Amino acid sequence: MKKIYSIQNTKIKDLIKIYQKKNSMNLFFVEGIKEFEMAIKGDYFPIRIFICEKIFYKYNMIQSFHSITFVINMKIFKKLAYRENSGGIIALFKEKKYINQLKNIKVSNNNSSIILILDGIEKPGNIGAMLRIADATNIRIVILCNVKTYVYHSNIIRCSLGCIFTRQIFLEKIESIMYWLNKNKIKIITTGFHKHKKTIDLYRTQFTNYNNIAIVFGSESEGVSNIWLKKADQIITIPMFGCIDSLNVSNAMAIIIYEMIRQKGSL
Amino acid sequence: MKKIYSIQNTKIKDLIKIYQKKNSMNLFFVEGIKEFEMAIKGDYFPIRIFICEKIFYKYNMIQSFHSITFVINMKIFKKLAYRENSGGIIALFKEKKYINQLKNIKVSNNNSSIILILDGIEKPGNIGAMLRIADATNIRIVILCNVKTYVYHSNIIRCSLGCIFTRQIFLEKIESIMYWLNKNKIKIITTGFHKHKKTIDLYRTQFTNYNNIAIVFGSESEGVSNIWLKKADQIITIPMFGCIDSLNVSNAMAIIIYEMIRQKGSL
Repeated sequence: MKKIYSIQNTKIKDLIKIYQKKNSMNLFFVEGIKEFEMAIKGDYFPIRIFICEKIFYKYNMIQSFHSITFVINMKIFKKLAYRENSGGIIALFKEKKYINQLKNIKVSNNNSSIILILDGIEKPGNIGAMLRIADATNIRIVILCNVKTYVYHSNIIRCSLGCIFTRQIFLEKIESIMYWLNKNKIKIITTGFHKHKKTIDLYRTQFTNYNNIAIVFGSESEGVSNIWLKKADQIITIPMFGCIDSLNVSNAMAIIIYEMIRQKGSL
Repeated sequence: MKKIYSIQNTKIKDLIKIYQKKNSMNLFFVEGIKEFEMAIKGDYFPIRIFICEKIFYKYNMIQSFHSITFVINMKIFKKLAYRENSGGIIALFKEKKYINQLKNIKVSNNNSSIILILDGIEKPGNIGAMLRIADATNIRIVILCNVKTYVYHSNIIRCSLGCIFTRQIFLEKIESIMYWLNKNKIKIITTGFHKHKKTIDLYRTQFTNYNNIAIVFGSESEGVSNIWLKKADQIITIPMFGCIDSLNVSNAMAIIIYEMIRQKGSL
């Protein structure tokens, strides 16, 4: 492992450049031990690893990457790190191809999978929290559309505790998603209200009647868009007894997905 | 309604001073129509109201407050407002007494209430989301301890959609909470792990066995502290099937509370 102690080193200068325009060259940053481990687990490929000699201790974690690992001092680490308590590691990873790839995926009819569709979610923190729920409940496929943020945004990585790396992420146009759902005979369930459709209480919905389900969540400010409501096989609602008429979108997902899998007998 | 068109006006200058040290004089700010309405609904008392003549339109909402309402122009509004799309209203409210007040509250034994205890939650966004769940599920009493943020923080108000105003909020020391729970015979349920105690799966827990329940959630980084785990009548766990071992704290609350009230037949 080579040592770099000067901020003027070209590798550090390159790094700062990539930091500033995050998605240039299809590379992104991962900070933190747990997040690094999740990226490796998810078969992401590290290009360069920087470890701070004063903080980092998990050398067995990076033993197969010695040739691409650089030891840096505290001064440089502080210049690079967004977070404290990340365990002294920052790594540069290669993006996976996640744009327009859904067409290559087939879902068996006999399955009882849940597919997560996030349409226009704005806050990286919400996307991160939703990816944690996806991880916890075995939702493998996560489809994003009308995305307002970079998929490998540091806050998505952080708030998902690295679950962004262990899910199959797709960035698609609505039309391609609709075509794919139809082709794979996947039913669409969403929350919201459509004037010509019946809305069923979550706890009156019979999820056992469905095989594969795509569940759609919309933006924090606008909710699920009309195009989804129109196509939905079932619109559901979470019972609420207070003054307000909506929950945080990740909370809505948590309640719905756990009720779905409870009904399907997976709990 | 008087008009103020100069940023040098003493009322505006006073306002900016209070903005800068938010909790001075036990006053706080509310931005937004929905949030203002919720504060009024929760019997909070406005001291001064500032409306932007170019944006604000809900004059019937403030008709009983004409004597304390001031019309401001866009320039001053932009100087004061944190948010866009708040509907052109900023108001100064008086805090309710929320410190060391729990001792005055009695909970009937025959009830089947849920009391929410948030110990050391760090992010205003999480507290806000949890208050929305509390509103939706009729949790009236919310007790905060080891608070890391100001109770009427603009982000708590915003992320709770004003539900902070319609709940009974208490800020207490752990010892006072324990004493009060014991006196009112309220059972303590929490998530986490204690080496001498059995942990039960959420979906195997019989909530119908309990009358009044206090449910405790701990900080994002540390979880529920040992003092609660030691005193808990029941430690529960949410089943998770992925790589990570925790959900966002507001998501955990959403899943647990909705399963509690489902079992109790309230859904």
